[in-house]
Amino acid sequence: GRTGTPEVVYAAGKTPTQTVACLAALLDGGARPAWATRVDDATASAILERWPDAVVDQEARCAFVGGLPAPVGNVLVLTAGTSDGPVAAEVAATLAASGVGCTRVDDVGVAGVHRVLAVAPDLAAADAVVVVAGMDGALPSVVAGLTDRLVVAVPTSVGYGAAFEGLAALLTMLTACAPGVLVVNIDNGFGAGVAAARIVRSAQR
Amino acid sequence: GRTGTPEVVYAAGKTPTQTVACLAALLDGGARPAWATRVDDATASAILERWPDAVVDQEARCAFVGGLPAPVGNVLVLTAGTSDGPVAAEVAATLAASGVGCTRVDDVGVAGVHRVLAVAPDLAAADAVVVVAGMDGALPSVVAGLTDRLVVAVPTSVGYGAAFEGLAALLTMLTACAPGVLVVNIDNGFGAGVAAARIVRSAQR
Amino acid sequence: GRTGTPEVVYAAGKTPTQTVACLAALLDGGARPAWATRVDDATASAILERWPDAVVDQEARCAFVGGLPAPVGNVLVLTAGTSDGPVAAEVAATLAASGVGCTRVDDVGVAGVHRVLAVAPDLAAADAVVVVAGMDGALPSVVAGLTDRLVVAVPTSVGYGAAFEGLAALLTMLTACAPGVLVVNIDNGFGAGVAAARIVRSAQR
Amino acid sequence: GRTGTPEVVYAAGKTPTQTVACLAALLDGGARPAWATRVDDATASAILERWPDAVVDQEARCAFVGGLPAPVGNVLVLTAGTSDGPVAAEVAATLAASGVGCTRVDDVGVAGVHRVLAVAPDLAAADAVVVVAGMDGALPSVVAGLTDRLVVAVPTSVGYGAAFEGLAALLTMLTACAPGVLVVNIDNGFGAGVAAARIVRSAQR
Amino acid sequence: GRTGTPEVVYAAGKTPTQTVACLAALLDGGARPAWATRVDDATASAILERWPDAVVDQEARCAFVGGLPAPVGNVLVLTAGTSDGPVAAEVAATLAASGVGCTRVDDVGVAGVHRVLAVAPDLAAADAVVVVAGMDGALPSVVAGLTDRLVVAVPTSVGYGAAFEGLAALLTMLTACAPGVLVVNIDNGFGAGVAAARIVRSAQR
Amino acid sequence: GRTGTPEVVYAAGKTPTQTVACLAALLDGGARPAWATRVDDATASAILERWPDAVVDQEARCAFVGGLPAPVGNVLVLTAGTSDGPVAAEVAATLAASGVGCTRVDDVGVAGVHRVLAVAPDLAAADAVVVVAGMDGALPSVVAGLTDRLVVAVPTSVGYGAAFEGLAALLTMLTACAPGVLVVNIDNGFGAGVAAARIVRSAQR
Amino acid sequence: GRTGTPEVVYAAGKTPTQTVACLAALLDGGARPAWATRVDDATASAILERWPDAVVDQEARCAFVGGLPAPVGNVLVLTAGTSDGPVAAEVAATLAASGVGCTRVDDVGVAGVHRVLAVAPDLAAADAVVVVAGMDGALPSVVAGLTDRLVVAVPTSVGYGAAFEGLAALLTMLTACAPGVLVVNIDNGFGAGVAAARIVRSAQR
Amino acid sequence: GRTGTPEVVYAAGKTPTQTVACLAALLDGGARPAWATRVDDATASAILERWPDAVVDQEARCAFVGGLPAPVGNVLVLTAGTSDGPVAAEVAATLAASGVGCTRVDDVGVAGVHRVLAVAPDLAAADAVVVVAGMDGALPSVVAGLTDRLVVAVPTSVGYGAAFEGLAALLTMLTACAPGVLVVNIDNGFGAGVAAARIVRSAQR
Ligand SMILES: Nc1ncnc2c1ncn2[C@@H]1O[C@H](COP(=O)(O)O)[C@@H](O)[C@H]1O
Ligand SMILES: Nc1ncnc2c1ncn2[C@@H]1O[C@H](COP(=O)(O)O)[C@@H](O)[C@H]1O
Ligand SMILES: Nc1ncnc2c1ncn2[C@@H]1O[C@H](COP(=O)(O)O)[C@@H](O)[C@H]1O
Ligand SMILES: Nc1ncnc2c1ncn2[C@@H]1O[C@H](COP(=O)(O)O)[C@@H](O)[C@H]1O
Ligand SMILES: [Mg+2]
Ligand SMILES: [Mg+2]
Ligand SMILES: [Mg+2]
Ligand SMILES: [Mg+2]
Ligand SMILES: [Mg+2]
Ligand SMILES: [Mg+2]
Ligand SMILES: [Mg+2]
Ligand SMILES: [Mg+2]
Repeated sequence: GRTGTPEVVYAAGKTPTQTVACLAALLDGGARPAWATRVDDATASAILERWPDAVVDQEARCAFVGGLPAPVGNVLVLTAGTSDGPVAAEVAATLAASGVGCTRVDDVGVAGVHRVLAVAPDLAAADAVVVVAGMDGALPSVVAGLTDRLVVAVPTSVGYGAAFEGLAALLTMLTACAPGVLVVNIDNGFGAGVAAARIVRSAQR
Repeated sequence: GRTGTPEVVYAAGKTPTQTVACLAALLDGGARPAWATRVDDATASAILERWPDAVVDQEARCAFVGGLPAPVGNVLVLTAGTSDGPVAAEVAATLAASGVGCTRVDDVGVAGVHRVLAVAPDLAAADAVVVVAGMDGALPSVVAGLTDRLVVAVPTSVGYGAAFEGLAALLTMLTACAPGVLVVNIDNGFGAGVAAARIVRSAQR
Repeated sequence: GRTGTPEVVYAAGKTPTQTVACLAALLDGGARPAWATRVDDATASAILERWPDAVVDQEARCAFVGGLPAPVGNVLVLTAGTSDGPVAAEVAATLAASGVGCTRVDDVGVAGVHRVLAVAPDLAAADAVVVVAGMDGALPSVVAGLTDRLVVAVPTSVGYGAAFEGLAALLTMLTACAPGVLVVNIDNGFGAGVAAARIVRSAQR
Repeated sequence: GRTGTPEVVYAAGKTPTQTVACLAALLDGGARPAWATRVDDATASAILERWPDAVVDQEARCAFVGGLPAPVGNVLVLTAGTSDGPVAAEVAATLAASGVGCTRVDDVGVAGVHRVLAVAPDLAAADAVVVVAGMDGALPSVVAGLTDRLVVAVPTSVGYGAAFEGLAALLTMLTACAPGVLVVNIDNGFGAGVAAARIVRSAQR
Repeated sequence: GRTGTPEVVYAAGKTPTQTVACLAALLDGGARPAWATRVDDATASAILERWPDAVVDQEARCAFVGGLPAPVGNVLVLTAGTSDGPVAAEVAATLAASGVGCTRVDDVGVAGVHRVLAVAPDLAAADAVVVVAGMDGALPSVVAGLTDRLVVAVPTSVGYGAAFEGLAALLTMLTACAPGVLVVNIDNGFGAGVAAARIVRSAQR
Repeated sequence: GRTGTPEVVYAAGKTPTQTVACLAALLDGGARPAWATRVDDATASAILERWPDAVVDQEARCAFVGGLPAPVGNVLVLTAGTSDGPVAAEVAATLAASGVGCTRVDDVGVAGVHRVLAVAPDLAAADAVVVVAGMDGALPSVVAGLTDRLVVAVPTSVGYGAAFEGLAALLTMLTACAPGVLVVNIDNGFGAGVAAARIVRSAQR
Repeated sequence: GRTGTPEVVYAAGKTPTQTVACLAALLDGGARPAWATRVDDATASAILERWPDAVVDQEARCAFVGGLPAPVGNVLVLTAGTSDGPVAAEVAATLAASGVGCTRVDDVGVAGVHRVLAVAPDLAAADAVVVVAGMDGALPSVVAGLTDRLVVAVPTSVGYGAAFEGLAALLTMLTACAPGVLVVNIDNGFGAGVAAARIVRSAQR
Repeated sequence: GRTGTPEVVYAAGKTPTQTVACLAALLDGGARPAWATRVDDATASAILERWPDAVVDQEARCAFVGGLPAPVGNVLVLTAGTSDGPVAAEVAATLAASGVGCTRVDDVGVAGVHRVLAVAPDLAAADAVVVVAGMDGALPSVVAGLTDRLVVAVPTSVGYGAAFEGLAALLTMLTACAPGVLVVNIDNGFGAGVAAARIVRSAQR
């Protein structure tokens, strides 16, 4: 697209038929890949029926038609807990669609800070860092203190009670004491992936 | 008092004359010390005029009349940043009034996680831990992962914007991923001190 | 675990297969018991199929594999109303997994204050108190005025309208006028149980 | 007035001159007394200058011109803490202006539940009860469990942090587990007084 | 009960078997009627199977066993719209269980103020008024300006968007400009009925 | 301006010097009048010093330089209470600057619904209606039921406690049951005036 | 109706039988059309069974009985995204029932500002503009800067996370920097349609 | 510092003496510049007295000691309105301290979208974009649609009423429909500047 972001279909609230039609239009317009996020099972089936060689990423709920570009650069994607996986997978899928490489390390929540410290080599090797966390959302605060890379923080709606469906994690990330933390919407793996890809591309320019 | 907590005057919203009268009544009732929190300058002066040997803790905004008990046990009091100092001082003053010992380490915010790790020996030596933090309030999450002591977490109103006068830190602490974190009201150093003193006394029983 | 808390699987958002695998890993690591919270019917069945001698606590939605330790000490667990039962059961299950004894008294809401007063002997016999309450969440305020034990307060999401899914009870507990009240997340029986077990163990040291 | 409530001037946001003019107009219309709430010092002076025999209630911030009616009936007004005094005084002033009798008992917060129980004879002697409380706002829950009188609950903005300027107490009162609790706006002693006076008058009809 | 309120079972969150058991216990204790609120279809069937002469009020979701007392006095129950009907029915059922008479007038929302004015004779004939309204919750403000009876205001969760499940109506009622308005929890027809019954009984004493 | 709204300087947060400079620039650009809202005393003095024939509206906190256009049409501006006056005055000032006529009727809160009904002739004579109300914000709901004119509703920050600085009135107006109510920001008399002027002009086209 | 708005049945929370009865009553009263909003599939079927020539608008979830009036004037209805379609369709249906013409342009979100600029001719041709937008709700701010028509802004509940079910869009629209923006409740296409119809009719008078 | 961000003193809540001491310590540690944000007048004077060649940026409330590095790269800093100036100045000051170049264009709010379009050449020339906006906070949504640069969005507390001290702008930015928008805390010009500097440096690597 004009803004350098891969064209994508947001399938939430669309019928399988509508999503297939949108993907077909993107393909007609030359998009490689044409892809969709927030794809449910029925939509995934419809896509695979139309394009048998489509790739469906079940964890990320994304589908790609037309092949993925070769990746350049490297974004480190961290999650605080197992339940943050689908959002991290959406980040990774967005990076893949953008032709950017990705290393993912899961379950490094701050309650086990030695596991966080163990990612130091990955931080040094990364062009940018995406941190995905729900509940207290404290992981970006710690990670940003360990690196001079930009940290894109994604609060998730994982948790209960005072987590208030991601609000607690969102406020934590916005008030993170370490500078260099930038925040996207709750569960917005797509937005974080687009941003990280831009950082990598700007580093490659 | 019947519940084992040192009698105290909450001077906020009382005139100096009222606070002095309350302290005199506590002394009459045998309280040693009689003491007050949230003491402003005018009240401190009124107390010192009446009891020249009173002790005024300016950082904590507390005043003690009638001598402090010899301390037993040891509570570790940590702050994330310099601005959290007055609340930590209120914790320490409450411990002093309760006859409980206290070690205070300031400015160990999670953005510098190696400073947090450096308090490991203090954690091992403590009967209980109080963690005071504003902004993102992430410090108790990390500390609780490093110790099997109870962690009493005090959110502070330090910060601006999405800190929402302590709400962000409060929600972070309530949703802390490490178990063993217990939370008191925003800026409630007194409540945290009372709780920590009870833990120490129960360990001494 | 390193922090002295029994290893546990949080089964919410995991498939039965995943939870069974996590439990098996804990058992391999030597955990006795290996256990899980937030266990639904399908997960309970899967656990019992794998380990026929597992114990499933239906009210608490917890399952234990490998036998429970002999209990030491005594925690008093109070509920304000019948609907708070499952959260209190999660507290009790956590204490059981931690090898700590527990006395549970239900339905002592403050609207019948004479029933609250009747627990005075139980308070005197307890090492710590956990109070579970929804709606107005007023019970910890009254209980803390009757004892010098620590009171761990658990707000529940029981109620409707201005209860705002536990927010009303949470705010009540955070602002409880009696000192010695410490608060955990809404419906967080696990966290309260871990904290109470630490108090008991610290009293036993 | 047509609705049976004594005519009153709400002086907040009015100049002393405006309030004096409003009172003069009420007197012209036959009001006995003509009175005003939320009266600051300058307004009180202006009223006393114009009507030297006016009565100013400093705690309640109310002023009465033209004499108070003889009281009938009896409303019990309870406060949880000393700082709730001005709101309770506004209740009492409204009752006085309405010709209704009033018994006030202060500082019976639920943290000292035996003090609450000691008001049982006052409850039995009252036509209605008004309970004024800030912070956790738990007192009406307990009182309503002790009486079959109506309990008018007034949350106050007393407190800090998670008291959120009266919101915590308001939610507590709205979700009070004992039935028979009715709630007015935060700090609205006037509204509670009007309501209690109506209950008494309806009992006298 | 000791507080003069008819014993009731709150069936929400109870199984049909539990509710039937609770009702049986109340009957054993001499309650006439024994009754329950928030009764779903399965529970209603279980009650009718056990006590074929029980009375089930479908709109109110209430069931009565053991006959209703003869009504005294008269409470006017108004609704702003058709959808507020179930809450008003719960008010009426509570009055019936309490032996208090009731006149119900529906659908007199303030958007048709002439319909509101038409209830003036009903207001004059009532001992107390209950006003049930969702969305903007404006009806109590208007009604309280037309009567010197107490107005018990019940916000409902009817509406969408900025109605925020009853919050908008709740705030409106708490800030109603006419004095004499007292508020209960969102959708709390039971609490409003208990309060109105107490007003009537106090008028009958 | 291009969008047909009179050019205006929003003086809040500007120094007197800056506001005078902005007005001078507007005059240079041909604006008649050049005017400013949110003008404090110091700014008003600076304007009058520079343009001795400027008109300052103290209640509205607006100042006009260069003469007002002859008014066409008629907007009815209603307030619920005296304290809403400054916001209504800002509406009227904006209409004056826009060359639109205005009738203002104050203090017709819904607690005195007969006063509201008395404005029926004014409603019939108006091209549009602006309703300004704080606290419960109920007036637009009633007015919109009496007219087929558009009702522009302005919530004000007048009130205390659960008025939450205008939030209660805002939610009431957004959920007003009578259709034809359109809402602007809290205290935004300027925006309401601009909108009402456009309605009149569109009626005059 | 008396206020010039077409009589309508709000079918949400009504059974199909109830809605059919309400429509029949409106027809009896002479309404042409009689119509209903928030019509689900079962209700639509019941309407078509009773009146086979009824018109059901599936996107808008509206049904019309008795023919639509010939349209006069023209309202431009814009949506930011595809998912806002049902709300825009409710606007259009309300205009149709009111006998007002409508041009609809979809999917002109501000992220593609050149598409917004392309509607300039439509803006010039319109009597009023309705802008429907969820997520950031930014479209009315831009549109109001391009026209001197009134802009009726409808926030929608489209979005996730910090969209908070329409709250984000609502606040954006209330604080829109361009004057001339008037706001209705979240998802309230009906209210926006009524308002726009009144603007057109006032322009036609 | 270790994380590549220039060492800074956050002077809010520090005395002038404390801030001067912190700056001296940074200078001792080799920082060039040593600098401080949130500097009030008294602190600025104390800094200038100690270091007469210090540079004080009054709009940004920042002070620099020890000379600024030569700038590399170029960040475009946009504001929506004049009142957003101080926050934009803090962004610019942070860039200056970081040795990064900056172009600032003020007052390009979306209500004048043609002014936004006019910055297209600046967007093309920038390494990164920072957008500062209060009230509706809509500007980043439009800007991100015009560029493939990363957009760092800074909500400000400018505005009143439903702006809720920056909350409205914050939510708008988090839900911006154009991807590539990353958000920092309300009024956090420092954080945005640090992030933008990292983007530039990563592009320079
Ligand atoms: N302290 C108070 N709190 C709330 N409302 C009050 C208070 N005092 C008076 N009022 C109300 O304010 C109205 C008078 O307002 P005003 O016409 O502005 O003087 C009275 O009718 C009362 O309903
Ligand atoms: N009282 C007011 N309330 C809200 N917005 C206003 C007010 N007065 C002026 N404005 C807006 O502020 C803009 C001028 O802002 P500025 O360029 O900072 O002077 C105008 O275009 C108006 O849209
Ligand atoms: N979709 C809608 N959203 C909001 N209000 C509506 C809607 N449709 C109808 N209404 C309002 O609901 C009223 C009818 O409600 P009812 O009497 O319950 O059918 C009408 O007078 C309209 O003001
Ligand atoms: N204007 C600002 N807004 C937010 N954070 C800041 C600001 N200026 C400095 N900081 C942060 O505050 C920290 C220094 O705090 P302190 O140790 O209290 O001086 C720095 O590490 C920065 O991360
Ligand atoms: Mg983990
Ligand atoms: Mg620091
Ligand atoms: Mg009970
Ligand atoms: Mg007390
Ligand atoms: Mg109706
Ligand atoms: Mg008035
Ligand atoms: Mg689109
Ligand atoms: Mg501007």
